[in-house]
Amino acid sequence: MEVMQVLHMNKGEGETSYAQNSTVQRNIMTLANSFIEEALAVLLCNNNYPESMGIADLGCSSGPNTLMLVSEVIGAIYAISRQMERPMPELRVSLNDLPGNDFNDIFVSLPAFYNKLKEEKLGSGFDQCFISGVPGSFYGRLFPRRSLHFVHSSSSLHWLSQVPPALDSKAGVTLNKGKIYISKTSPLSVLEAYLVQFQKDFSLFLRSRSEEMVSGGRMVLSFMGRRISEDPSNERSCHQWELLSHALMSMVSEGFVQEEKVDSFNAPYYAPCPEELESEIMKEGSFTVDCLKAFEVDWDGGSSSSHEAENCTKSETLTSGQRVAKTIRAVVESMLESHFGKEIMDELFRRYALLVDDYFSKTRPKYVNLVISITKK
Amino acid sequence: MEVMQVLHMNKGEGETSYAQNSTVQRNIMTLANSFIEEALAVLLCNNNYPESMGIADLGCSSGPNTLMLVSEVIGAIYAISRQMERPMPELRVSLNDLPGNDFNDIFVSLPAFYNKLKEEKLGSGFDQCFISGVPGSFYGRLFPRRSLHFVHSSSSLHWLSQVPPALDSKAGVTLNKGKIYISKTSPLSVLEAYLVQFQKDFSLFLRSRSEEMVSGGRMVLSFMGRRISEDPSNERSCHQWELLSHALMSMVSEGFVQEEKVDSFNAPYYAPCPEELESEIMKEGSFTVDCLKAFEVDWDGGSSSSHEAENCTKSETLTSGQRVAKTIRAVVESMLESHFGKEIMDELFRRYALLVDDYFSKTRPKYVNLVISITKK
Repeated sequence: MEVMQVLHMNKGEGETSYAQNSTVQRNIMTLANSFIEEALAVLLCNNNYPESMGIADLGCSSGPNTLMLVSEVIGAIYAISRQMERPMPELRVSLNDLPGNDFNDIFVSLPAFYNKLKEEKLGSGFDQCFISGVPGSFYGRLFPRRSLHFVHSSSSLHWLSQVPPALDSKAGVTLNKGKIYISKTSPLSVLEAYLVQFQKDFSLFLRSRSEEMVSGGRMVLSFMGRRISEDPSNERSCHQWELLSHALMSMVSEGFVQEEKVDSFNAPYYAPCPEELESEIMKEGSFTVDCLKAFEVDWDGGSSSSHEAENCTKSETLTSGQRVAKTIRAVVESMLESHFGKEIMDELFRRYALLVDDYFSKTRPKYVNLVISITKK
Repeated sequence: MEVMQVLHMNKGEGETSYAQNSTVQRNIMTLANSFIEEALAVLLCNNNYPESMGIADLGCSSGPNTLMLVSEVIGAIYAISRQMERPMPELRVSLNDLPGNDFNDIFVSLPAFYNKLKEEKLGSGFDQCFISGVPGSFYGRLFPRRSLHFVHSSSSLHWLSQVPPALDSKAGVTLNKGKIYISKTSPLSVLEAYLVQFQKDFSLFLRSRSEEMVSGGRMVLSFMGRRISEDPSNERSCHQWELLSHALMSMVSEGFVQEEKVDSFNAPYYAPCPEELESEIMKEGSFTVDCLKAFEVDWDGGSSSSHEAENCTKSETLTSGQRVAKTIRAVVESMLESHFGKEIMDELFRRYALLVDDYFSKTRPKYVNLVISITKK
């Protein structure tokens, strides 16, 4: 599986689209707001107040969350510049995601976004914001040398650049039978393969950003993870995948899916613990850690959002399992489809919703989300 | 009509797509190659050989032409840097078009493009090319201050930012009855309205680029125009629109289209003559003209291309009129559709093809394409 080619959030505005099913990711994004504001305040309050400021959102996706983040960042910079009685810097905002992302969806909403910016900031001399789309993998160089002051990424860095090669079906060995991610029954070699791939990817991520960022530049990263010293096979960091493998295996047992198809699929995903992050940051050596915090996030995104308020009659009739299934489907469908085929998707996520509902009857499941704020030396 | 919202080349890869029907534009682009090479040579041969070089293609569209231009520019820079025994500059390539352009189509082909670049230039230390998409109108600021060294635009600047307000149907006056662009029967006020809009737009274009370009930066622009002192209502500069208005009026006479619909449509297009260009460049004052040349281009794009060779059996059976109709349709359909409705498009272009075939039986029609190369003072 070529992650670069098959991983993208579900496009468009339809019922299974990411645009309609990204409340959890929006809630997660909101958790990082205070980190973003603090990082920008430090960045702008020193002696290096920039005339022109490079900002990048890595894994920007599409739908309402993309420009909400840009709004949040611009709003924070505006507030700081007012407080400091300095003119707004010229803002160069780069929206990055893999080439299969729905950039068209973002771009058609830009004229209205620029108009809103102008109206809200009218009379403040604020009219120098240049937004561009940068397609490519953040596991590698994306931007010119020393061009970025602030880098943000939310709900993206838990995706690996590839399935760990030791697990790839091409190797002909089935290490992770009946599972699609780390599971309690996975042999240690599976955990090791995932950790090694994470280390390789995160290290390359840091090295690439290190070349692109100015000294003193700040980076706020938020993604799925684990608590300190938590085992990668613990329920809190992988049970969403465990239930998805159960849904797939139930379809195997009824002959809808071939067992070897499940055996040969492993998610290009890893939820690291704080020690694993800090260890890579120390080894790479270009960044210092300012802050690292773990948050718990409800699987079903908690209460419905203003964006989804229009659909609230419909939303309210959904079970927690159905809500979780829609959230997960909007994210992983492109990958599953390329491996298992389009035709099983409706049935797979119907079964998944039932399994999640059953799980909700026993517990109130939560993800662990890590937010880390680091500074380029 | 909001040009920014409705003007875009036909998307996708289908039979009426721009990707499949842009041979004429590719031929036109090729005409400017020697201008591009000359401009880059001068730009790089002086004492300001840049470490990092900003390049923009304005109105990049989608389909094969977009990355062909990027290839041409990179290839020229590579050749010059080799000749000068200097390292390749870091290249920041911005692809600009209106927000409705099919950027997704460009972006999915970027990984293969980057791989090809790396293979072809292997061992030359060439791996620093950063391509981004910049949606927005080039009649206004698009890029940070003094960030661009080389700007290119092909087959785009003949599009105005809006229909000249005096002709806009909202004004309630029908100045250009039965016509959709300047015509032999158009009153002088129509010609004036078009010229005024062109002057306003081109002047804003120059002023915007002037802020974005470095001193000594070069710009190569290529677009539909007229020969020196040629009247704007002469056949060579507007007969493609004249025949399209005939096709529409034939549908009016048979009751398929309302006459007031034709009366209230005017193309946001202008084909300027060299004097009109030079006069605006002089008035704006930031650029000097290095070179200006007029070329003649066959309406039907001449011989079929390598890209279309796959479809050659089908292409060969098309009449000149059908080929011209497909070329024009791929460009103007989005605008016509929003005004006249989707349902008449097939019939409109069927009639148009017949009218063009009839015209070809009398003459071998050609467009005039201007190429102008200018330097930022």
